[in-house]
Amino acid sequence: LPELVGPELRPPYLLFLGDATNPLDAKTALGLVHWRPEDCVGQLRFANARVDTGLPDMDIGQARRSGARSLVIGVAPTGGALNPDWETTLANALDAGLDVVSGMHAPLASLPKLGNAAYRSGSRLVDVRRPPDELPVASGRRRSGRRLLTVGTDCCVGKKYTALALHRALRRAGVNATFRATGQTGIMISGAGIPLDAVPADFLAGAAECLTPDNEPDHWDVIEGQGSLFHPAYAAVTLGLIHGTQPDGLVLCHEPARTVLDDFPNFPVPDLAICMKRYLEAARLTNPDARFVGVSLNTAGLGAAERESLLERTAAETGLPCVDPIAAGVEPITDRLAQPLP
Amino acid sequence: LPELVGPELRPPYLLFLGDATNPLDAKTALGLVHWRPEDCVGQLRFANARVDTGLPDMDIGQARRSGARSLVIGVAPTGGALNPDWETTLANALDAGLDVVSGMHAPLASLPKLGNAAYRSGSRLVDVRRPPDELPVASGRRRSGRRLLTVGTDCCVGKKYTALALHRALRRAGVNATFRATGQTGIMISGAGIPLDAVPADFLAGAAECLTPDNEPDHWDVIEGQGSLFHPAYAAVTLGLIHGTQPDGLVLCHEPARTVLDDFPNFPVPDLAICMKRYLEAARLTNPDARFVGVSLNTAGLGAAERESLLERTAAETGLPCVDPIAAGVEPITDRLAQPLP
Repeated sequence: LPELVGPELRPPYLLFLGDATNPLDAKTALGLVHWRPEDCVGQLRFANARVDTGLPDMDIGQARRSGARSLVIGVAPTGGALNPDWETTLANALDAGLDVVSGMHAPLASLPKLGNAAYRSGSRLVDVRRPPDELPVASGRRRSGRRLLTVGTDCCVGKKYTALALHRALRRAGVNATFRATGQTGIMISGAGIPLDAVPADFLAGAAECLTPDNEPDHWDVIEGQGSLFHPAYAAVTLGLIHGTQPDGLVLCHEPARTVLDDFPNFPVPDLAICMKRYLEAARLTNPDARFVGVSLNTAGLGAAERESLLERTAAETGLPCVDPIAAGVEPITDRLAQPLP
Repeated sequence: LPELVGPELRPPYLLFLGDATNPLDAKTALGLVHWRPEDCVGQLRFANARVDTGLPDMDIGQARRSGARSLVIGVAPTGGALNPDWETTLANALDAGLDVVSGMHAPLASLPKLGNAAYRSGSRLVDVRRPPDELPVASGRRRSGRRLLTVGTDCCVGKKYTALALHRALRRAGVNATFRATGQTGIMISGAGIPLDAVPADFLAGAAECLTPDNEPDHWDVIEGQGSLFHPAYAAVTLGLIHGTQPDGLVLCHEPARTVLDDFPNFPVPDLAICMKRYLEAARLTNPDARFVGVSLNTAGLGAAERESLLERTAAETGLPCVDPIAAGVEPITDRLAQPLP
């Protein structure tokens, strides 16, 4: 099996936002600021950008003087394309001695100025969304250890945040646990993982098996979910991830204010009960014991009373602990998982 | 959208079988012999091979004298790896002036002797399982025209044969129809298509959309199925194919004698009714009108009376026309599809 060597990232980072106007497109930058604040020194935005990470705005020279060693592309447009409008700025960063780190599908060297600037300067082009070359076909073999996977009613509903929060809470409770990143932002935050959506489809479940190998009986892999089974473009990624990781526990992530899928207004957000039924059907192909262990809601925008009422109502409807990981933590879920195995 | 330019194949073919012992591993050779007999001149087998296409055994010199212009690798081991034991034979074929055609995931040039031999001889290395470089993310937009997709209870249950037979029968009935290949053998048979299992997972449904574009209202795309939703390694390929092609009609393919999945003995073949329910759930995400229009059984090994009884029983159980495309044709399915639209 290929080793899960992470990309060699050199913090601290200058976060590049281009002209991003939708916070959902800036999830890489916002994720790094939230989970690795000590590694982020500033943001670089074009004049018409409307996303703000809260970090100081800097140009490349200021970032260099503030100690930045890498510029990280902090936006992820649909399809993962590199925007040619970014080329000059990224080349300037390389010339100033910063590495450029990208989570796009297209390799950085496909923008011609970047290869030249890296060659001139000795700075590095770091493509995080490049899967290992030699991945196996999945075997379907049950593995030792326990696995927890976040799944969602849509993309961008908090699957990565929830998994990182679950991992942190389990570790704080003294549980032996590892966060397993499956996307570019998770890999940048944790330093290792496999960008599953870039894996050739035949090897997707096999890559998910590699990511979550045999482990101690009481060890939990906490796995970053991807996409949604109800998404017309990305459901295949979700299904391969479920089958390959063979999760024991699933946590459903949902944004209650959303009625249609992000960027796909003709597709409604599915009902939670149907969603859970379909996720369990899928998961039980490779793990007949799979079950839901919690629900994670993104209640941003709600007041405290409304939030509390919604969490209680959802807990009653689903019979599961229901949390908002950002607003109130995930301990209602992890307290149960941290118990000794029955 | 990328154009669906097929690989430039030069028939007639010498079919290379290596040391294949399982006919399921030789589906490329057997498919070409069945659907393109006029393009196949002979087979080349190692001494310990036990698969036989029925074509004359030939060495490379004999094949050349019989008019062969290409050697086609006719075996497809799990994972699509190139076997280093083949290298000398393939290099000899190139040196003798034959192109070498491969449906493996690994590019032919990854065997070092082949690049050298191709350079020396001017013969070509033709990698059929290479997807287009620029594929879009799926849009989920409904397209004009009608689409028919074969799905299965497992891999290697007749999805490609059934689709090719459906296409031929529709054309014979005067229906405007196109066969859409999604795997290496189908591409070699039809001369065009996209090898979906080699597409990066994020673009899988998008590739399936490209493969089946807008068309005349009465035109049928007849799409080769891949894998199975109940397969621990390949279900993701199946789901992306279903979502992207948004089929109006589904045909369920099944091998009644099989009780466990091919190469995955811990996974039972699913019940037909559950299978159909789950395929419809998946298909209706992108096409709420999706429905089953037939069942295709591989009854090889049964006598005529047993076959007839099984086909009748399955038709009664499912309420659908039930055929064996090899033994008796698919007209019970296509006769209904060839009716004018309601």
